[in-house]
Amino acid sequence: MNSVSFGSDNHSGIHPQVLEAIQKANYGYCPAYGDDPLTIKVLEQIKQLFGGNCDAWFVITGTGANILSLQSVIHSYNAIICPKSAHINTDECGAVQKFTQSRLQPIETTDGKLTPELIAPLLLGNRDQHHSQAKVISISQSTEYGTLYSLQELKALADFAHQNNMFLHIDGARLANAASALNCSLKEMTKDISADVVSFGGTKNGLLCGEAIISFNPEITSDMRFYRKQASQLLSKMRFVSAQFEAYLQDDLYLQNAFCANKMAKLLAKRLQEIKEVTVTQEVEVNSLFVILPEHIIETLQQKYHFYTWNEATNEVRLMCSFNTKEEHIDEFINDLKTLL
Amino acid sequence: MNSVSFGSDNHSGIHPQVLEAIQKANYGYCPAYGDDPLTIKVLEQIKQLFGGNCDAWFVITGTGANILSLQSVIHSYNAIICPKSAHINTDECGAVQKFTQSRLQPIETTDGKLTPELIAPLLLGNRDQHHSQAKVISISQSTEYGTLYSLQELKALADFAHQNNMFLHIDGARLANAASALNCSLKEMTKDISADVVSFGGTKNGLLCGEAIISFNPEITSDMRFYRKQASQLLSKMRFVSAQFEAYLQDDLYLQNAFCANKMAKLLAKRLQEIKEVTVTQEVEVNSLFVILPEHIIETLQQKYHFYTWNEATNEVRLMCSFNTKEEHIDEFINDLKTLL
Amino acid sequence: MNSVSFGSDNHSGIHPQVLEAIQKANYGYCPAYGDDPLTIKVLEQIKQLFGGNCDAWFVITGTGANILSLQSVIHSYNAIICPKSAHINTDECGAVQKFTQSRLQPIETTDGKLTPELIAPLLLGNRDQHHSQAKVISISQSTEYGTLYSLQELKALADFAHQNNMFLHIDGARLANAASALNCSLKEMTKDISADVVSFGGTKNGLLCGEAIISFNPEITSDMRFYRKQASQLLSKMRFVSAQFEAYLQDDLYLQNAFCANKMAKLLAKRLQEIKEVTVTQEVEVNSLFVILPEHIIETLQQKYHFYTWNEATNEVRLMCSFNTKEEHIDEFINDLKTLL
Amino acid sequence: MNSVSFGSDNHSGIHPQVLEAIQKANYGYCPAYGDDPLTIKVLEQIKQLFGGNCDAWFVITGTGANILSLQSVIHSYNAIICPKSAHINTDECGAVQKFTQSRLQPIETTDGKLTPELIAPLLLGNRDQHHSQAKVISISQSTEYGTLYSLQELKALADFAHQNNMFLHIDGARLANAASALNCSLKEMTKDISADVVSFGGTKNGLLCGEAIISFNPEITSDMRFYRKQASQLLSKMRFVSAQFEAYLQDDLYLQNAFCANKMAKLLAKRLQEIKEVTVTQEVEVNSLFVILPEHIIETLQQKYHFYTWNEATNEVRLMCSFNTKEEHIDEFINDLKTLL
Repeated sequence: MNSVSFGSDNHSGIHPQVLEAIQKANYGYCPAYGDDPLTIKVLEQIKQLFGGNCDAWFVITGTGANILSLQSVIHSYNAIICPKSAHINTDECGAVQKFTQSRLQPIETTDGKLTPELIAPLLLGNRDQHHSQAKVISISQSTEYGTLYSLQELKALADFAHQNNMFLHIDGARLANAASALNCSLKEMTKDISADVVSFGGTKNGLLCGEAIISFNPEITSDMRFYRKQASQLLSKMRFVSAQFEAYLQDDLYLQNAFCANKMAKLLAKRLQEIKEVTVTQEVEVNSLFVILPEHIIETLQQKYHFYTWNEATNEVRLMCSFNTKEEHIDEFINDLKTLL
Repeated sequence: MNSVSFGSDNHSGIHPQVLEAIQKANYGYCPAYGDDPLTIKVLEQIKQLFGGNCDAWFVITGTGANILSLQSVIHSYNAIICPKSAHINTDECGAVQKFTQSRLQPIETTDGKLTPELIAPLLLGNRDQHHSQAKVISISQSTEYGTLYSLQELKALADFAHQNNMFLHIDGARLANAASALNCSLKEMTKDISADVVSFGGTKNGLLCGEAIISFNPEITSDMRFYRKQASQLLSKMRFVSAQFEAYLQDDLYLQNAFCANKMAKLLAKRLQEIKEVTVTQEVEVNSLFVILPEHIIETLQQKYHFYTWNEATNEVRLMCSFNTKEEHIDEFINDLKTLL
Repeated sequence: MNSVSFGSDNHSGIHPQVLEAIQKANYGYCPAYGDDPLTIKVLEQIKQLFGGNCDAWFVITGTGANILSLQSVIHSYNAIICPKSAHINTDECGAVQKFTQSRLQPIETTDGKLTPELIAPLLLGNRDQHHSQAKVISISQSTEYGTLYSLQELKALADFAHQNNMFLHIDGARLANAASALNCSLKEMTKDISADVVSFGGTKNGLLCGEAIISFNPEITSDMRFYRKQASQLLSKMRFVSAQFEAYLQDDLYLQNAFCANKMAKLLAKRLQEIKEVTVTQEVEVNSLFVILPEHIIETLQQKYHFYTWNEATNEVRLMCSFNTKEEHIDEFINDLKTLL
Repeated sequence: MNSVSFGSDNHSGIHPQVLEAIQKANYGYCPAYGDDPLTIKVLEQIKQLFGGNCDAWFVITGTGANILSLQSVIHSYNAIICPKSAHINTDECGAVQKFTQSRLQPIETTDGKLTPELIAPLLLGNRDQHHSQAKVISISQSTEYGTLYSLQELKALADFAHQNNMFLHIDGARLANAASALNCSLKEMTKDISADVVSFGGTKNGLLCGEAIISFNPEITSDMRFYRKQASQLLSKMRFVSAQFEAYLQDDLYLQNAFCANKMAKLLAKRLQEIKEVTVTQEVEVNSLFVILPEHIIETLQQKYHFYTWNEATNEVRLMCSFNTKEEHIDEFINDLKTLL
């Protein structure tokens, strides 16, 4: 467990300040299921952070955040439009279909990003009783390819969604990384571009476990707490999620952590781009790199460092940095890589 | 948050040894989703604790443990037989129905306990295509009324289930409390009585969050990991659940905590029974008490102590003790109660 | 297949006028899925019959009508309150749970009828996130026990539902029998008592197959056509359902058929009440009788006549009449019964 | 309703012999829900037709047949691989997702046909808990593009499925058209190529309503009758579906009807190919044609004849023939088309 991992940002542990907050919250008795003062206070902070006039709920896992965000705005006869690379489409074992009984309509992309032009052709069947009715566009910011939507691109998608009687959902498992990279506030990236329901990830950015769902349509998502309980996503000892988020917001720790992860990824990219046998395949905008390595070194390198092969056909691998990635980890990795070449 | 709560055992926080284990596990990088050595090791310990030849998985919440345990042995056309007081029937907002699309068939009881005699009449419709097919008996040990099944009663239910082509599921959110009270091992209470699938609760007994599911039919429940992911119950930073369970098993902490909670409940019962205006309504076998209080003192008492009114018509309240309940909490409560009378 | 059956009203075939309508509709080409002029016309007739300002859809089976009626007004976290004897609770193999993922909350009754007093205690948990939220009261008119709600009783239930933010659903598989018995119009029994969603049964009263769903909340049930397709209840050759309903409405055939079935049941009841060894257990208000027969004759009688034993413990059987039941069938049955005594 | 339709084969009505069979079955009393002698007899005939050692059930709609066939072999964490053009993917409003809570994994094709080569890349994620587990390949024979799998191609898919621990499902809404075109028996096209579960369509080929599901894995699909009831697909007056199928099998009416529909489609194709302004885009193997027409005539032609525009961008339309299509209908259509050019 001591070796360095570029496998995922969730291979890192708990940020020390977050762990300290858990310890601090561990005294005496406290109402469960979110009825405690700390939860109420921190949820209020989150609502303010996202610009107010919104509603917010804590959940436990990213998959839980996604299925609940989507369930809150759709019915079973609806379709959810997403990029083919979306986490909900590729990495959640059909949790969305299980929970919502609805249909995913994935769109092939090269960079994990949707555009109104890509979506428009799918809307032709709307109002015909034989077709699942497209009702929500679900995107990830930052994307599973480590790419970013600009604020203009986000706004264009939200506007397009609303013009077509749909909602915009943002899977923000790495929303902090996006905010840091775009140098904008969470509010600017969500409320201001007219997003409807958004998740604000914590686990991949230094929490033990915890995600927040934010809805900018409180009247539409007013049943969220019932769905959350049905989804087994209501933690009884909620104060410990709230405490984590309190630390996460304190002095913008979520941005600090994201900044660090992004910076390390850029550094790693820079170092890799100096090596002629290596090709970086996607723009490095946040904390992940997609890189083609010479085939003969991948396996040996994976014996020391944890990382995933993304495309066996092309020898493309994914390298992820986290709040916990240190410059010496990168030095070590680059040295080992060079030695192998 | 400083006031004493008899509201629920999940109003207490994290046991210090459990918190320490989380801290200890918080270093460096570690594979996610249960592929880490600690998880593998602790799951093996749990399997041994339950007698081996079984399979085990960690999940996050008690509701998650219940829906997954049940899903693993049924299909949507099945019925789940349970006491009307069962947590799955009264306190999970229909999570079982949402996840499994199946039918709960609750049976009225006085003490929260099922018997073969109570169940037999419900089985008449089996094999008729118009009726949901009863496939699993789901009981809680200890029950939501703080009562216990003896080992013989458990065995009778398991045998009855198997004779009728059904499974026995035990919701063990308070399994440790039962083991302590019955002075038996977890193995004796589950494997030895031929239970099929069992949850072993942690959260209500000193963990931040964490439950284990144990299956004594590994071939039948072989799809559990896929269902767990679909249920949003697969924690990415799994090492921190495993670390909690490592501490929980160390020196039988789960039994120590349960013993304490049970002992405090018995003490509280003893003290209450000395007060003539108070009636204890259910036998106090584990860590909860059901007590009829004079109506005029309930509200005042609840201003200082958190506890739930169970039956407004009869002024019956529920008082729960936890690993964290201290003798002085009870003294204080009894004194205040006496003062109010 | 020539022997007389009192097993169910669906043991009878197609009323000749209905069959003739099918034949008449069988020419040339016709748009499918309800886009044909006949369907549009007959649906309009149905809406008028129920008083207008409502919406209507054809479906194929009674179970289909029930799951769709209920789905249109609830979400998965809702509870459906119904009598324990409700068809949705006892005879549909959990179709409601499968389709809606929600919870049935059955109430024990002696005559298959709900009252506000029976329902009120179940509403205490509403607004608590741990409990399924009761959202619809589902009753059958006439009931599965062959009993009837008076118009006043219906109104009281609808008012109670609305006062508690719930809807009233009427499973009208035998709505025509009720209308005939109460000597009232369909409108008086549904729209005028403020029912929300109602099914108007055809199959049990002379159709090959066909049921209509009527909604008095068109804005709430506006998604019905999508749910209907999802439920596999959209017949492609819809004209043949519409043709059946056209005949069914023509000269009030639905009432004529129901009148006949009810009359035969009353006659059968009268003849049975003259036999001292026989006890009629429920008031005979429509077309079914619940009768205790001497145990030793039941099996022999069932060799000639098809009917179901309702309660083996008490030797209670159910006898059903249909539009097709003839006085000579009853004579024959009574004679055989007397011979056996 | 008198104008000629090439819109769909379900725009035609009931074949006279089928209607006669319904009339013949309409006498006296008959057990419901399939317990009648006729149903038992006709199901046995169907099993023999498919080669025996199989199980068979009647359902009402094609969508019902599909969701039940698929449900019988999968669980919610499974993926269903199908062509993008599959009826289950494009025309059932998400009924499969609603009923099975599982995931469709559609594959883009040019002719509506899958091959092992197209499927293989999708199987890489199998056994990984984050991915829906591919468990069944669902194809249509004939396809939604009017194309056909050869027996060798079917066998290759079935073998590929079984080698990868999957099942092969055939949506046989137009299975008779395929059998007629391939000049082979139903057994040769299903049992002999090792298909697992197959639907045998009736509605599109001359029935009022009725489809049969055939399973060659009776032990795996032994729960079908419960799922069928849950799916609202169990018709109470089943004898009338069975009677239709009896007529359908009598003197191979299903083949006669299919032969006629196919022959008319080939004739229509021949006549269209003689017109230089018209392009037939898919091979005409059964009863549908995909044709590019000059844009300016489409709308005018659709005022007289019912048919669908398949691709607005390319002016491709679909023309379908049925058992009821007459040579004079085609003459008339061709004449009108020529006049418009």
